[in-house]
Amino acid sequence: MAVRVAVAGASGYAGGELLRLLLGHPGVEIGALTGHSSAGQPLGALQPQLVPLADRVLEPTGAGVLAGHDVVFLALPHGQSAAVAAELGDEALVIDLGADFRLSRAADWERFYGTPHAGTWPYGLPELPGARAALAGTRRIAVPGCYPTAVSLALFPAYAAGLAEPEAVVVAASGTSGAGKALKPHLLGAEVIGSMSPYGVGGGHRHTPEMAQNLSAAAGEPVGVSFTPTLAPMARGILATCTAKARPGVTGADVRTAYQKAYADEPFVRLLPAGQWPATASVLGSNAVQLQVTLDPAAGRIIAISAIDNLTKGTAGGAVQSMNIALGLPEETGLTTIGVAP
Amino acid sequence: MAVRVAVAGASGYAGGELLRLLLGHPGVEIGALTGHSSAGQPLGALQPQLVPLADRVLEPTGAGVLAGHDVVFLALPHGQSAAVAAELGDEALVIDLGADFRLSRAADWERFYGTPHAGTWPYGLPELPGARAALAGTRRIAVPGCYPTAVSLALFPAYAAGLAEPEAVVVAASGTSGAGKALKPHLLGAEVIGSMSPYGVGGGHRHTPEMAQNLSAAAGEPVGVSFTPTLAPMARGILATCTAKARPGVTGADVRTAYQKAYADEPFVRLLPAGQWPATASVLGSNAVQLQVTLDPAAGRIIAISAIDNLTKGTAGGAVQSMNIALGLPEETGLTTIGVAP
Amino acid sequence: MAVRVAVAGASGYAGGELLRLLLGHPGVEIGALTGHSSAGQPLGALQPQLVPLADRVLEPTGAGVLAGHDVVFLALPHGQSAAVAAELGDEALVIDLGADFRLSRAADWERFYGTPHAGTWPYGLPELPGARAALAGTRRIAVPGCYPTAVSLALFPAYAAGLAEPEAVVVAASGTSGAGKALKPHLLGAEVIGSMSPYGVGGGHRHTPEMAQNLSAAAGEPVGVSFTPTLAPMARGILATCTAKARPGVTGADVRTAYQKAYADEPFVRLLPAGQWPATASVLGSNAVQLQVTLDPAAGRIIAISAIDNLTKGTAGGAVQSMNIALGLPEETGLTTIGVAP
Amino acid sequence: MAVRVAVAGASGYAGGELLRLLLGHPGVEIGALTGHSSAGQPLGALQPQLVPLADRVLEPTGAGVLAGHDVVFLALPHGQSAAVAAELGDEALVIDLGADFRLSRAADWERFYGTPHAGTWPYGLPELPGARAALAGTRRIAVPGCYPTAVSLALFPAYAAGLAEPEAVVVAASGTSGAGKALKPHLLGAEVIGSMSPYGVGGGHRHTPEMAQNLSAAAGEPVGVSFTPTLAPMARGILATCTAKARPGVTGADVRTAYQKAYADEPFVRLLPAGQWPATASVLGSNAVQLQVTLDPAAGRIIAISAIDNLTKGTAGGAVQSMNIALGLPEETGLTTIGVAP
Repeated sequence: MAVRVAVAGASGYAGGELLRLLLGHPGVEIGALTGHSSAGQPLGALQPQLVPLADRVLEPTGAGVLAGHDVVFLALPHGQSAAVAAELGDEALVIDLGADFRLSRAADWERFYGTPHAGTWPYGLPELPGARAALAGTRRIAVPGCYPTAVSLALFPAYAAGLAEPEAVVVAASGTSGAGKALKPHLLGAEVIGSMSPYGVGGGHRHTPEMAQNLSAAAGEPVGVSFTPTLAPMARGILATCTAKARPGVTGADVRTAYQKAYADEPFVRLLPAGQWPATASVLGSNAVQLQVTLDPAAGRIIAISAIDNLTKGTAGGAVQSMNIALGLPEETGLTTIGVAP
Repeated sequence: MAVRVAVAGASGYAGGELLRLLLGHPGVEIGALTGHSSAGQPLGALQPQLVPLADRVLEPTGAGVLAGHDVVFLALPHGQSAAVAAELGDEALVIDLGADFRLSRAADWERFYGTPHAGTWPYGLPELPGARAALAGTRRIAVPGCYPTAVSLALFPAYAAGLAEPEAVVVAASGTSGAGKALKPHLLGAEVIGSMSPYGVGGGHRHTPEMAQNLSAAAGEPVGVSFTPTLAPMARGILATCTAKARPGVTGADVRTAYQKAYADEPFVRLLPAGQWPATASVLGSNAVQLQVTLDPAAGRIIAISAIDNLTKGTAGGAVQSMNIALGLPEETGLTTIGVAP
Repeated sequence: MAVRVAVAGASGYAGGELLRLLLGHPGVEIGALTGHSSAGQPLGALQPQLVPLADRVLEPTGAGVLAGHDVVFLALPHGQSAAVAAELGDEALVIDLGADFRLSRAADWERFYGTPHAGTWPYGLPELPGARAALAGTRRIAVPGCYPTAVSLALFPAYAAGLAEPEAVVVAASGTSGAGKALKPHLLGAEVIGSMSPYGVGGGHRHTPEMAQNLSAAAGEPVGVSFTPTLAPMARGILATCTAKARPGVTGADVRTAYQKAYADEPFVRLLPAGQWPATASVLGSNAVQLQVTLDPAAGRIIAISAIDNLTKGTAGGAVQSMNIALGLPEETGLTTIGVAP
Repeated sequence: MAVRVAVAGASGYAGGELLRLLLGHPGVEIGALTGHSSAGQPLGALQPQLVPLADRVLEPTGAGVLAGHDVVFLALPHGQSAAVAAELGDEALVIDLGADFRLSRAADWERFYGTPHAGTWPYGLPELPGARAALAGTRRIAVPGCYPTAVSLALFPAYAAGLAEPEAVVVAASGTSGAGKALKPHLLGAEVIGSMSPYGVGGGHRHTPEMAQNLSAAAGEPVGVSFTPTLAPMARGILATCTAKARPGVTGADVRTAYQKAYADEPFVRLLPAGQWPATASVLGSNAVQLQVTLDPAAGRIIAISAIDNLTKGTAGGAVQSMNIALGLPEETGLTTIGVAP
């Protein structure tokens, strides 16, 4: 019998991608769709790519409308999930695509978000050690941020295997859908086309503590992260260039072996053949992570580069993957590793 | 039992898109994959987006390798399909993604392609009047060109209903994948990014007679087409702006009614609500046609604009749709109307 | 002695491009710069490309601040120029980059803009017959719209020579800077990258009557225009595909001769060698018009295609060119025909 | 009296940009233009943006044709400059846009280029300590690589002031014109649009030793560089994110002061106001470097990010700037800090 799902925040990019995936999920029936300023509008005017749902009208977000579903996805602005989740009770699986429940240390939350910490939910990145066990049967899931997904999967095998010094340097490029549909001058097409620019430089990006949390857990010691995000002239995709100094004596073969082991059985992670590097186009619209790693012998650094679709594996696809685990469905249901390229 | 398919020309854009769709088709098993200069290479090096086929090695194209399949897709350069098809015999369904068998008049072929005409096969644009009947059970299918798909579907309802004068003016923009993987200076990224340019202007584009053929059939009289294709700075998508003078007395309501009737039962064509216009992003990776039409009262012209993905509905998706009809499968199998947007 | 200029609306795309050109104009000294919501901000925060003006602070737009300049450029929203111009008096050369004074027929203005007609100023498209004479010494200039610039220059020679039937069909693609810096959802980078879409279809775009006015003047009879603008995934550039039925007996040589004559002495218009077609990249940042024309013998239509930079020749460059004429400076001062490509 | 210049390799991207700048240089007269496979073609067919030179025909590259000019620019494939330069004699100023004479250590050259080292010429990055003195009056100039220009200017002030540990980590994104006009599949528009991808990862890129050479000279000790270049979906521009661990006790104020001092009198380098970060669009077509630097207190790293136009400051503009110095002309002649944006 189909699982009945609701999506709060169906007008945004995360909500739209989620609905695209859910429409192709054989075990799911789409229930309430809600919005805030877009309530009352037909989805076809907001998400014209979702043809089968074009005539569905958005309802105002609220616990009443979301009640009575087996799964509720929250694609809301940061800080709004806790109140909604509290009203939904424990019978529903609540999956938060926002940041509210990702961080385990209240101090991190408060420093980067400036509000009281709402708590910590099981973390929806199944490829991390121990993550699947925490997701099985849970009624609450915190979906990771898009950058932390790309960066954690690129670097955790090196840390889990004790190969890297605990200071990572990450520079990532993201398509502009990562910034959402908010109307800001620097996100206008004329500004972003033909231009690369950084933002949140110097440790200020909110995804930084989430990366550190994941890599520290893998390393068993605190790992610092220098993170520089950049905006790239494309709609989707993250390319994360992640480097760390190799521990003394570590060889290229050690590195490769660690990554092969970490990802031998992962359905969505493809460690590329040696010498082939990932491109974001290869994962467009897919839940795949394409990944390569090498050791720069002169610089003594491990260089791991991952490509994901920020809206799919980085947001909505990761959410569906985690939902599948929580509900006991086959993990790959409704998801693909095949990108839409070129 | 699964239908066994072979793809000749698996290294190109059409071949790659075909394999993307076939991997998601529940009734199909992928057999031989062939290439010319790419024979011997693993598909993962050529089509990194096709993760499940990454280790498959391309074989040299030839009738021997293609024999023994239920369906053979030919994604070969123009003029090479006839010889291969002849060797395959009638037991196989042969689907030509090239131009060889699209035109019914030998004179048209010879003028635009310069070689002897090889013949005419059932035409794989099921939405045209009579097309489905010709495709049912056939062993040979000529897949339409990408531009003729977009233009014929935008204009045939006006001609079939007798609403338009027999001179169409079409200006279409295409993503650069439409030009294929051939290495030509004007297709370099640095040339096409940030630039719009026309080509094949003044009646010279080979898709012109194919459009005229389709519209003339719908009109029951010869329809001339002025066609200007332009290259747009995007990887995929066709936006076809198609206009024709309205016959005297024709009203906007007449036009709308004709289109509503023509597409009432078509699973892949979405006539948008009045006032909403299509965007190519909405159909990316999908087999949908998004379409709008209006009557410009001052100019007295019908303006119909369609958006398709040139590689999906315009090539590989149209091929799969026609294959489904020929094999008696549900027409929508393995295809979607949902685009990957933004 | 340097001419002292003020720019009202210096924070927008038109204002920024104007300042870029004026900074390279040897006869000009830049005076007051004004803005509305941006008043009080340094220009470096709004137009970071204008390094020499980075520390200039915008003042609130008003006649007081603009007074005392030899030339005042108005890059204001439609409908605001008349009041400002009235206060400036006749000693200043006032150049309006908005639409207020472009149309000669009040009925056209009122139908498309919905407010009372403010009047008609000399029209800043010097290449049109008689335009230079009207601009010489004038104190008021209406700068043409970007689309009318591209379209009028593509088609007027055909009409002036009596070669074309009085019904033009135009489809043009524009970079998204043409829509200005207004914050609208459909102008977000994630929406426009990778997508082509039409707007203002069916005769509704406000530039339509301006094109018809120019072409009718050239033809000596009313010329109707079917105009479809489309938004292309690039920051700048207009490619205008303009067609009209050729009058009976007109040959390709007639057409070519007419265009060669019309543009023999024009410094900014390049009629390309036969067979070469324009690309918008070739005119990026330049005041050039690159142009080609042919006769499609089968369709009986003249196809003229022009490429301009919408912000340069289409707005700010055209304004500077007209200013030069009005002030008696050499027309090419501060302008170039050389594009920034690739 | 005008300096007479020749350009060998006028058909490529570097040659085209050089001619664009030289056409605007008041002290220069353009002489011979040469090409290899393009010899005999009019420049208008190869560089349609260079309208004033459209009818100039390329001659075959050779010392005979290049002789008799005051300045000869060589935009040739690596390894071809030495032979041509030898034939030109010492009376001409020879400016090599290739790599042949950039590296001072033969071992570096041989490891990265695989041929015998041809020698070392004065290095055309005037902003580096001592560089202007070496360029004044020279008859030979090695123009820096595009990445080393962006990276050296971003980091040398930190090293010159002794603020950074001698291990730099650099990730840079480049527009695809950086790869030149060579016809390679991964440079096709359909491949690069909508995609980010790395290349030359792990220390293999040929610009790595050039960066290390510049930074080591500034530091007075060997500086290692971990360099990862990525290809971005834009035609032009480099954004270089450059980081290094701060030496113990270094403060943010120390860092800012060092950069302010280093660039106080540099006409082409703009250190942005604190909090504003560079975007490549701001420097398009200009010789400017826009730069920002900060200290990440948590990670203990200096983050310096520079934006340049790879073809202008990164190649042809840097060449003209150095030519001006060598000839005793004002350094800014023919160059601008103003970008073409948006």
